This record gives sequence, structure tokens and C-alpha cells, in this order.
Amino acid sequence: MPLELYFFQPLGTNSGRVFLALLEKGVEFNERELNGREFEHLQPQYLAINPRGQVPALVHDGRALAEGAAICEYIDEAFEGPPLRPADLRERWSMRRWCRYIENDVGRALMMIHWNRIVPGFVGARTPEEFERLVARVPDADRRRAWRRAYLQQTPPEELEESRGRLREASQRIETALSGAPWMAGTSYSLADIDLLSFFAFVSRWSPEIVNKTATPRTMAWIERMEERPAVRALRARTRMPQLPPATSG
Amino acid sequence: MPLELYFFQPLGTNSGRVFLALLEKGVEFNERELNGREFEHLQPQYLAINPRGQVPALVHDGRALAEGAAICEYIDEAFEGPPLRPADLRERWSMRRWCRYIENDVGRALMMIHWNRIVPGFVGARTPEEFERLVARVPDADRRRAWRRAYLQQTPPEELEESRGRLREASQRIETALSGAPWMAGTSYSLADIDLLSFFAFVSRWSPEIVNKTATPRTMAWIERMEERPAVRALRARTRMPQLPPATSG
Repeated sequence: MPLELYFFQPLGTNSGRVFLALLEKGVEFNERELNGREFEHLQPQYLAINPRGQVPALVHDGRALAEGAAICEYIDEAFEGPPLRPADLRERWSMRRWCRYIENDVGRALMMIHWNRIVPGFVGARTPEEFERLVARVPDADRRRAWRRAYLQQTPPEELEESRGRLREASQRIETALSGAPWMAGTSYSLADIDLLSFFAFVSRWSPEIVNKTATPRTMAWIERMEERPAVRALRARTRMPQLPPATSG
Repeated sequence: MPLELYFFQPLGTNSGRVFLALLEKGVEFNERELNGREFEHLQPQYLAINPRGQVPALVHDGRALAEGAAICEYIDEAFEGPPLRPADLRERWSMRRWCRYIENDVGRALMMIHWNRIVPGFVGARTPEEFERLVARVPDADRRRAWRRAYLQQTPPEELEESRGRLREASQRIETALSGAPWMAGTSYSLADIDLLSFFAFVSRWSPEIVNKTATPRTMAWIERMEERPAVRALRARTRMPQLPPATSG
């Protein structure tokens, strides 16, 4: 039975990391794109595949796997191709720590900062009632709150500033790591690099005051190296980017 | 160089999972208990080992490893002894998904519910100024907020209720998993069982209205099986339990 990946465009964060892991391994798969603007991930057809209503999901041998981080380790374990986890056990620990930090800490801060810029345009011309009807179907209470706050532009300013502080701290930690080694986990390219590209690399365009050639030169050089990889080029060729709305409050 | 584990009493959640993983593997280690009430984890001596000021930390060959989940996989990879991760790749994926869910979703809900009961007694006879001086040293803003809210008993009631809802949902998901297989990830005992014991099993005593022999019989039978394991008995013998304060609002 063919391998199928359910995902969102643009291919960033959770969808992008799994898509890229499959490309790096050279695994063939069928693309099943869901339309996020139509909230297709909350339709019964997809909830039958992933009851939590989140993308991505990888269907292998007819059974679905969810959760980006767990899928990525599965891909590395289940398929032939170049290893995406270091052979050195301490580097492997470092990879897992970075993956968690990038997703849980950095990803959450970025979500708070950027959803405020993205969500109103994403929701589009719907009435508040239509929006509320859609959001009420989001299974997780935290995510429902994040959607509503971003749509209504009601994220508390002190929490936004806290997220910007978290992002500044993260960019320094990442810069320090990349000053001591070529890849995030050390000498081996790994899932930590895939995650950093997916969750963080776009910050150099979206928040250039934080990630740029003066403040974070090693990170910028790492982004350039990443973008030259054949798998990343293939990912970019498959990615449709949204229009970038103007920054409103830094 | 001997293996050293820095941890808190009582041996639950993050400290307990790593302590138990070492016991299950049969690995010898030196115990380095930090005094949480004296906030020893925020003293310069410990911050030199883990700059984030969180326990546990495992020092192996003179270098420190942090983050419970990543340490546990490291322990299974680095040391001889019975495997703590399933050989079947889909069960291994399931293990990682459960570990993340137990820590991120269940753990956070439980923290919100139970910190409100624990923290005032934990802080003890300190003045508000002394408390604020200690908490200001907690590196993470979310954790600082959780400490303050719990100490001042200011957690918003709707967030407490949300956490109780999350806990009820989790207890049903766990019960369903344990109805189809003997262990959390399936047929193999794994780190997911270690995490569930560490983060969740005490709920049968702390929130018996949610986890009990009528509502969740499979979970209660699993707890009994877990408590009979030699490693868990050894863990219990090393654990000093705090006094349970009375429930105030269910």
C-alpha cells in the first residue's frame, strides 16, 4: 500500500518537517494536501484519520501516524536512506533536546508573534459568527484560545513581548550552538536541523531585526547551507508561500 | 567517572521517570538530591550543571545531560540491560507519542490542578518578599507565572476547570489504550509506562473521582502491575512522600 502524507501549505513547521524528512530519506509518497482555509482538517473525513484534527499525518501500510516529532523518528527508523539521527549517542540526545526546544519553546513563541499577523488574513471575509463556528470545532482549548486571540487581535501585549524575549534568547542559543559545530546536534546533520529550518529559519525574513548577518552570522550561514541541500530545494519547489502581511507592532 | 543523577524528592514526574529508567536498566549511579524547598536548583553551583535550573540532570563521563524525555532515551541507548523501547517500530512511534502527550498535555494539566494545592505549603513561612525574590530567579517566564499564581491562589477558575476537563479526557484515552494492550505502547513495556507512572498514577490518590476501579478499571489494574515491578518497589523505597493537603474546590 502506498505511503501517504496529509499536510498543509505552506510547507513549514509540522507539515514541512515531515515532508522534508521524507525527501531527505528519498522515500516516495503520495501527497494529500488539506485546505486549511476551508478547515478541511476538521472535517469528518480527516478526523477519521487523526481524531485530534491536526496535520501532518503519515499513513503507512494503511495505518495512520500522527505528531510531527514522533513521525520523523519513525521515518528514520522505518526507511532506507541517509540517517537523520547522529550515530553518536550524546549528539542524539542533543538532537532530541533541540527538537523539543525548537517545537515547544521557540515554536510557541513564534506562533504567538506571527499568528497575530497571519490569522486575520487567513480567516478572510467570514463573519464573526462563521469564524466562531469553525473555531469551536478545534478540539484543543489552548488552540481555540490562540485562534480567537489572534483573530480578534487580543493577545495581551505583555505576552507578545515575552514571546519576543523568548525568540531573542533562542536566537542567541542557536547562534552559540552553530558557532561550535556545523549542525545543530554537532557533527552530524539531523532531525534537529530539519526542525530548525521548519520552525525557525523564516524568522530571518519575518523578524530580520533578530536574525540577520550582523547579529547571527553563523545562523545565516547555516540557512544558506541548508537552502543548498537538494532535499530543501525540492521542498521549496513544492511550497506555496502566502503573502507576507506588513508588521504592525514590531 | 561515576554516573550521577541530580533530582528532587518526591521522586515523581521528571525526576522520577529518569530515576526509574536507571533502576529498570539496572545501572548503578550516585544520588545527588537537591533541596527544592531551599531552591537549591537555582543556586550557582547547580546552574553551572544545568543553566536552565531544572531537574533532573544526569552527569555521564563528566558531562551533563538535561531534559527528562531526552535523558530517558539516552539511558536506553547508552547502557546494557532490558530494553525500555519496543522493537516494533509502530509501537516505538506510539511510545514517543504517549510520552509527549503525558508530559506536555497531561503533565501540564496536573501541574495546574495540583500546584494550587502544594505550592503554599511548599513555600512555607516565607514572607511575600522572600517568595518573590526566590521566584524571580526562575529562568522561564511561564514557570514564574505558574509559581506566582499557585502561591497567591490566583489561577483563573476557568483555566482550572479546563485542566480538569483535560484530565478527564486523558484518563479515558489512557483507559482505552490499556483496554487493547497490556502496556501503553502495546505489547512491550516501555518509557511510556515509566512516564505514565511518574506523571499520572498518583491521580488515583489525588483525584480519585476521576481515576478509580469503576471508571478506569484497566488503568487501576495497570497501576497494580506497575507497583509490583522490582524497579518500582525500589523507587518507592527511595521516595519520601509529602503530606497531602486537603482538596479545596474539587
